[in-house]
Amino acid sequence: MSLVLVLPNLNGLYEHSPWVVDRTLSQYPQGFASLAALKAALAYTVQTATRDEQLALIRAHPELAGKAMVDKTLTSESTNEQGKAGLTHCTADEFAKIQKLNSDYNTKFGWPFILAVRGPRGTGLTKAQIMQAFERRLAYPADYEMAECLRQINRIAEIRLDDKYGVQPSLGNELWDWHEALAAFSDPEFKERGELTVTYLTKAHLACAALIKQQMQACGFDDVRMDAVGNVVGIYWGALKQPLPTLLTGSHYDTVRNGGKYDGRLGIYVPMLCVRELHKAGKRLPFNLEVVGFAEEEGQRYKATFLGSGALTGDFDPAWLDQQDADGITMRRAMLDAGLPASMDAISSLKRDAKNYLGFVEVHIEQGPVLNELNLPLGVVTSINGSVRYLCRVDGMASHAGTTPMMRRKDAAAAVAEMILAIERCAKAEAELVATVGQLHVPSGSINVVAGACTFSIDLRAPVDAKRDALEANICKALQAIADARGVSLQMDRILAASAAPSHPAWQARWEDAVQSLGLPVHRMNSGAGHDAMKLHTIMPQAMLFVRGENAGISHNPLESTSSHDMDLAVQAFQHLLNHLQ
Amino acid sequence: MSLVLVLPNLNGLYEHSPWVVDRTLSQYPQGFASLAALKAALAYTVQTATRDEQLALIRAHPELAGKAMVDKTLTSESTNEQGKAGLTHCTADEFAKIQKLNSDYNTKFGWPFILAVRGPRGTGLTKAQIMQAFERRLAYPADYEMAECLRQINRIAEIRLDDKYGVQPSLGNELWDWHEALAAFSDPEFKERGELTVTYLTKAHLACAALIKQQMQACGFDDVRMDAVGNVVGIYWGALKQPLPTLLTGSHYDTVRNGGKYDGRLGIYVPMLCVRELHKAGKRLPFNLEVVGFAEEEGQRYKATFLGSGALTGDFDPAWLDQQDADGITMRRAMLDAGLPASMDAISSLKRDAKNYLGFVEVHIEQGPVLNELNLPLGVVTSINGSVRYLCRVDGMASHAGTTPMMRRKDAAAAVAEMILAIERCAKAEAELVATVGQLHVPSGSINVVAGACTFSIDLRAPVDAKRDALEANICKALQAIADARGVSLQMDRILAASAAPSHPAWQARWEDAVQSLGLPVHRMNSGAGHDAMKLHTIMPQAMLFVRGENAGISHNPLESTSSHDMDLAVQAFQHLLNHLQ
Repeated sequence: MSLVLVLPNLNGLYEHSPWVVDRTLSQYPQGFASLAALKAALAYTVQTATRDEQLALIRAHPELAGKAMVDKTLTSESTNEQGKAGLTHCTADEFAKIQKLNSDYNTKFGWPFILAVRGPRGTGLTKAQIMQAFERRLAYPADYEMAECLRQINRIAEIRLDDKYGVQPSLGNELWDWHEALAAFSDPEFKERGELTVTYLTKAHLACAALIKQQMQACGFDDVRMDAVGNVVGIYWGALKQPLPTLLTGSHYDTVRNGGKYDGRLGIYVPMLCVRELHKAGKRLPFNLEVVGFAEEEGQRYKATFLGSGALTGDFDPAWLDQQDADGITMRRAMLDAGLPASMDAISSLKRDAKNYLGFVEVHIEQGPVLNELNLPLGVVTSINGSVRYLCRVDGMASHAGTTPMMRRKDAAAAVAEMILAIERCAKAEAELVATVGQLHVPSGSINVVAGACTFSIDLRAPVDAKRDALEANICKALQAIADARGVSLQMDRILAASAAPSHPAWQARWEDAVQSLGLPVHRMNSGAGHDAMKLHTIMPQAMLFVRGENAGISHNPLESTSSHDMDLAVQAFQHLLNHLQ
Repeated sequence: MSLVLVLPNLNGLYEHSPWVVDRTLSQYPQGFASLAALKAALAYTVQTATRDEQLALIRAHPELAGKAMVDKTLTSESTNEQGKAGLTHCTADEFAKIQKLNSDYNTKFGWPFILAVRGPRGTGLTKAQIMQAFERRLAYPADYEMAECLRQINRIAEIRLDDKYGVQPSLGNELWDWHEALAAFSDPEFKERGELTVTYLTKAHLACAALIKQQMQACGFDDVRMDAVGNVVGIYWGALKQPLPTLLTGSHYDTVRNGGKYDGRLGIYVPMLCVRELHKAGKRLPFNLEVVGFAEEEGQRYKATFLGSGALTGDFDPAWLDQQDADGITMRRAMLDAGLPASMDAISSLKRDAKNYLGFVEVHIEQGPVLNELNLPLGVVTSINGSVRYLCRVDGMASHAGTTPMMRRKDAAAAVAEMILAIERCAKAEAELVATVGQLHVPSGSINVVAGACTFSIDLRAPVDAKRDALEANICKALQAIADARGVSLQMDRILAASAAPSHPAWQARWEDAVQSLGLPVHRMNSGAGHDAMKLHTIMPQAMLFVRGENAGISHNPLESTSSHDMDLAVQAFQHLLNHLQ
């Protein structure tokens, strides 16, 4: 924190809006410890400006490939950026399409569409990517889209700052490219559609494992193996010959169907790049570093979620070997075909002995909107939420929509509507709780028939088990009361219950130190999603670091993204943790 | 009303509960004008008894095929009735199954299952029908099922009364058998499954038309024809040779898919039986009676609802001829194959000139629960409700159920839940309004994803257009306010709007007289469903008579039913109307 940035001329950083820089500098007379700190402060100024100021900032920007570009009234930065995206060389059709989008967008929102056309890697989006983003964002609600424009403006400023300082997120860029290379492998039917799907032990999955293994070797890991369940394990020995404790880290390389490129994989590649840097510098740590690319976390091909990390904690269920995939291929067969022993002896031997380990840390893309909305690249996880899932059904009485008076109805849809609002109310009672009805259906519903039945799902999560249990009890009580009051029957099948995994305080503190060392504010947050760290939690201390996701943090979706800048900061944070351990 | 019944010994009418008869007789010291009046009064006594009295009455009944039967502790009536249903001759398996059902039922409700085993025709239900009813009713809410038991007890008393008086609803029984015979024709794929489906101009449809035509001839109609759209039209000339005005009546003989046997057809057969009786007695009316079996009302094969009655009012859309069914067969082709001219000249000539007509009356099964709940066989329609239908879609933002805080969600399902309750609230504001969300779906919903979109339907109805319009405006306003407050977008497609058709006061009064003449209380009610009378309403005065439906008035369903007693009363009411016109 002692380093203070020397500021170059920051004119033009925010399009025709020098007040953003002026106000930021006036609020930080002591200067900035890092470029990341300056960027975060600038974003904070934008975020806390008045709505009128924000609108003026947005409206200071030119339309995409608009008249201003033809008139050359753009700032040179904007011309340069739009030029890099090929937007100064549109065909007549493309130009007409962009003008139509500009017009529709302006009619809907009342401001110009803003996109950091140099993209998350800084090398420029394609025209097709720009059009897709434009069309997608045209459908967003106005308040969300306004916030997105401000985020894009901050992203434009971030790249412009790099240009002014003549710096690049070089480790982040390298990581970005690793993810691209790994995403080249996808299960065949999905690859044809340009979609990323890597499920357990398919050819694409084995190709991913082979690439990771080869990359680990290239990074300078001392020992690289694929284990009996397909995990790729690399060890970088510590400084001493004598037995040293080991820090365990990693995440998964399988994906959901049509998933994103960063979910899981970021947590393998960040520590790999740290090892590469250590090895390049000829440095050893005072402990061993073991990086695991877990073969399976998503439970897509077989119903065996967390298979990879579960093997390390002794939670591999022998019955899984006889499970069949959609084509009738047993897991045992798939393992044998992949050259794995498919024996429980071999699998059981993967169980780690906690006394040899310092703990487990995991880097993961957030898969949620929080860091994106807060304009923060990194977040420290305080707990992986415990969760419970239900599949529910309400049975009322189907009857004629025209002939059944309101007071004589047993309307299953109306009952469920009341239940959904009750579920929402229960979860809103405390900031850290969430509850979701993601599936909702009136089976064979007709427009002119009062719903006789309605099915729905409940997913509820809380940072500690006691709160999860209380939330569950509140919801169940509220739902039964609604069913009783409306004279309908309620059936609730509890299909999943997972315990919360609070971060180990000492390990959480190490991540906090690492984030602070970058000049960034520490944001503590729950993980709403489950992660491999949940499994390791059962045998050793653990803590996670989250990396911001773009596009409202969307995940399990091709739109999942982060930026090479954020990746770079994640590497720096991991390096700090490694360098300050013990 | 001058006739007063001579009462036989009414012991045993209500199982071990003589208080029902005693209380009824004490409240009607003037006696009863008809058996129907006595039955209605008895049912009213049961309905207005205390809950404890009702429970005691229910519990006075033996279990179905239960121990009491073996012990011969049943009343002789119960033994006789259960014997007629074959329940005294069960196999061991059947007996075991009934005992299990008895036990489950008693555990759930705390009283024995009660079913009038002699059924709606009085000739006894089959064992299979009894088992199905038992299983179905086991799933009902307790308050509904208790009311159903009381209704079954009233039905048992109704049949016992017939036995005591030595009477039978002979016209109703005959009508019942006509419906059974007509239901023998069903479109092939449905017939295989034992389902009733008769859609426009299929072989089954043409067979129905042929049977109705033949029955009309047998009844003594003077002129029987099939017209250019497939309506079967029978005319029974009036008493004089000179031109007389005509009373028009009828309903439709097509059905929905897997529909009921009485929807539409009852309104053809009731006046046909009246003509048969007139003809048998050699009587002529002082007006012509024209009975139409409309070929099409349900809009199943083609999107051309009310085609049959529409042809009589000049509302046949020429574009319909080019419409294709699911197999690509145009309506024109289907008409030609059926031997119809398929020419607009021929169809246009079907339009009736109102000045030749007295008006239109229609008998129809209620298709709703009101008469069933009120224990009344007949109801007089005051208006056919006007309606509006919408297909709606809410778009929010799909996001991770675990990682998206409650306050950052744009949850389409929660927004729609709030809308459903608002719709319900708007319709409950006045007794005669109804509004229904019968279709509800989160497309591609996942248990762990906040709903990005949710689709639903709205069907709203009111007895006059002004109330319908006000309800529609209230709902639209409420829904938009919810969408705005939650930051989601709402799309509403208005797919149908139908005007209300209030009954003509003079014709409504004629039905009221007819009902009163049977000694029955007059119950006035809206029609929530649309009927052919809606079409005729556009060119002449109209009024409808409703007949009670069993099973909560369920319709468009194989469970649709009435009883031969109620049919008999409908015939008597129609006869009264005919005999007292002019």
